[in-house]
Amino acid sequence: MLHVVIMAGGSGTRFWPASRDDLPKQLLALVGERTLLQATVDRLAGLAPVERVLIAANARLVDAIREQLPDLPADAILAEPCKRDTAPCIGLAALKLVRNDPDAIMAVMPSDHVISPDAVFRESIRAAAELVELTPDRIVTFGIKPSYPAEIFGYIERGELLAEIPARAADAPLRLYVARQFREKPKLNVARQYLAAGNFYWNAGIFVWRAQTILDSLARHEPQMHAHLQKIAQADAASYPATLEREFAAIRGVSIDYAVMERAKNVVVLEAPFGWDDVGSWQAMGRLRPVDAEGNAVTGKHLGFNTRGCVIRSTDDHLVVTLGLADTIVVHTPDATLVANKHDEESIRQVVKLLAERGWTEYL
Amino acid sequence: MLHVVIMAGGSGTRFWPASRDDLPKQLLALVGERTLLQATVDRLAGLAPVERVLIAANARLVDAIREQLPDLPADAILAEPCKRDTAPCIGLAALKLVRNDPDAIMAVMPSDHVISPDAVFRESIRAAAELVELTPDRIVTFGIKPSYPAEIFGYIERGELLAEIPARAADAPLRLYVARQFREKPKLNVARQYLAAGNFYWNAGIFVWRAQTILDSLARHEPQMHAHLQKIAQADAASYPATLEREFAAIRGVSIDYAVMERAKNVVVLEAPFGWDDVGSWQAMGRLRPVDAEGNAVTGKHLGFNTRGCVIRSTDDHLVVTLGLADTIVVHTPDATLVANKHDEESIRQVVKLLAERGWTEYL
Repeated sequence: MLHVVIMAGGSGTRFWPASRDDLPKQLLALVGERTLLQATVDRLAGLAPVERVLIAANARLVDAIREQLPDLPADAILAEPCKRDTAPCIGLAALKLVRNDPDAIMAVMPSDHVISPDAVFRESIRAAAELVELTPDRIVTFGIKPSYPAEIFGYIERGELLAEIPARAADAPLRLYVARQFREKPKLNVARQYLAAGNFYWNAGIFVWRAQTILDSLARHEPQMHAHLQKIAQADAASYPATLEREFAAIRGVSIDYAVMERAKNVVVLEAPFGWDDVGSWQAMGRLRPVDAEGNAVTGKHLGFNTRGCVIRSTDDHLVVTLGLADTIVVHTPDATLVANKHDEESIRQVVKLLAERGWTEYL
Repeated sequence: MLHVVIMAGGSGTRFWPASRDDLPKQLLALVGERTLLQATVDRLAGLAPVERVLIAANARLVDAIREQLPDLPADAILAEPCKRDTAPCIGLAALKLVRNDPDAIMAVMPSDHVISPDAVFRESIRAAAELVELTPDRIVTFGIKPSYPAEIFGYIERGELLAEIPARAADAPLRLYVARQFREKPKLNVARQYLAAGNFYWNAGIFVWRAQTILDSLARHEPQMHAHLQKIAQADAASYPATLEREFAAIRGVSIDYAVMERAKNVVVLEAPFGWDDVGSWQAMGRLRPVDAEGNAVTGKHLGFNTRGCVIRSTDDHLVVTLGLADTIVVHTPDATLVANKHDEESIRQVVKLLAERGWTEYL
């Protein structure tokens, strides 16, 4: 049976001041009316019922997630007591699934990306799940065709074509390849080589496998991690909170890419037939939201004079007026405002760092 | 006896969103901790006691003024029922003064300029008052030595030197000249000629005269206005409010420059020995407030990265962060934020106009 695990642990400092420690990117309505997490859950309609959706997130976010997704069953949120990267989180989810359904197939996906059309996404997840059903030890990853030499994504090098799977929602048959190699975030010149080579994909962090397969892989490649996870899984209801707290904290945090994908032999890559955007920064609003005639992406109340190429975000009652402004990001929140040159946007991380250093935690 | 009339009627749309219909420029603390009006009153300490200070302002502002100046006697505010420019307002004040003190000497000054040092200002007003005492029909104006060919001020052309008055607070003797001619705001090329000629001053809107002198001038040059003002002055307490409302509204609004200064023959100009700034726009903050090493004039909570030549205004609890910003004005208020290129600042007037057109009066 197909289960979906949504990874909602990201902290997303790039969207400060809209994003905060307790309100990370995935909980913001950055693109449409729904938050990125809500849109991710909406996208599953018809693919897996809510009883088979698990959301993994830091314990601090549980209340906010429950509020955004009131239809989710109470035990649908897997609370991580601390940040330990993706591998322990995926392992914990897999253990939870196999307990009730030893043959559980597990689709893992981030909570903070924009994907469309939803039907094409569902079709490709379904195809991957069927593939795993047929060849149970397969690990299916999704590769995004790169549109520029990005330094901010990991890459997957594809090998030979394994299959073309007929599609209905997608325009063309789905293409499945051997995944020859996983590559970490490259330098620009390397990224350019990947782009020119034509057989590299961005790693979207979307995976489909049997839960038991990934547990076996973790047991093999990360035995200590697996042992800690086992202790958590075996705890009874009374001792679960303390065991989780202790054992999860004892795990060395590592990504699923590093722990498994770079080492496993049975990995295939499905070329994503859907549109994908990681919503990496405020600049993405210019791509993902409707823009006005001057190229401004605006949310909330705004009046612009001689304003172009800007990203403006306010609320419905706070008026932002811009005069003679180009390529600038303006984000108003009740207690903090950001005004940033688009080309300096990377520095937002430094802002958040400096706020922490100064002890201005009320803005974090 | 010297009385001071402070003209506090300006609406100052250039400081939106900090300035509003009910909170014009003179009621804002733009430069120091005190508002411009408070600083204007503070400056009079030792020159005239509060019982001899009159503040002329639109009726709508009376409460706010009273709040800012709690030590002022209750009848110190002369409320204008509508906007009629400076001449009717000055006439009304003069009538009020001569009623109790027929020999009243009247110093008239704006409420929204920055002047320093205060002692030099007081010394020059005192000198002008003494001059008027000696030669009772004199009209004394103050001329500011122009520092650039401004198109936004009226000019006074000086004629022959009449006197050098010994000074203590000022560095040099005060110089008094015949005022040869008043000139309205010139075009740039004309302003350049004035600057080059060397005998033109900016008209600072500061005047000293006997109250009776200005009333006589108004009676002669603006007989209809004078008649309306007389009716107001002659009203008894019971009929005063209705009379003021009716008669003041019936006056054709005109400036004192146009009504009197350009026509009168007995005008002299005192070269201002004090520093003067009209605080004409947000840009003035860069001149009038301390700036940081990157030339930013900052009020309120701010963090700047790669930020220079900016004017930033926030409150003590709302954080404004700027990244990669130059020559930009950022003004945060609880319900509106302005982000403007310094060189587009003139457009603020258009913003205010457009807000009115759209009926967004909550921001005006």
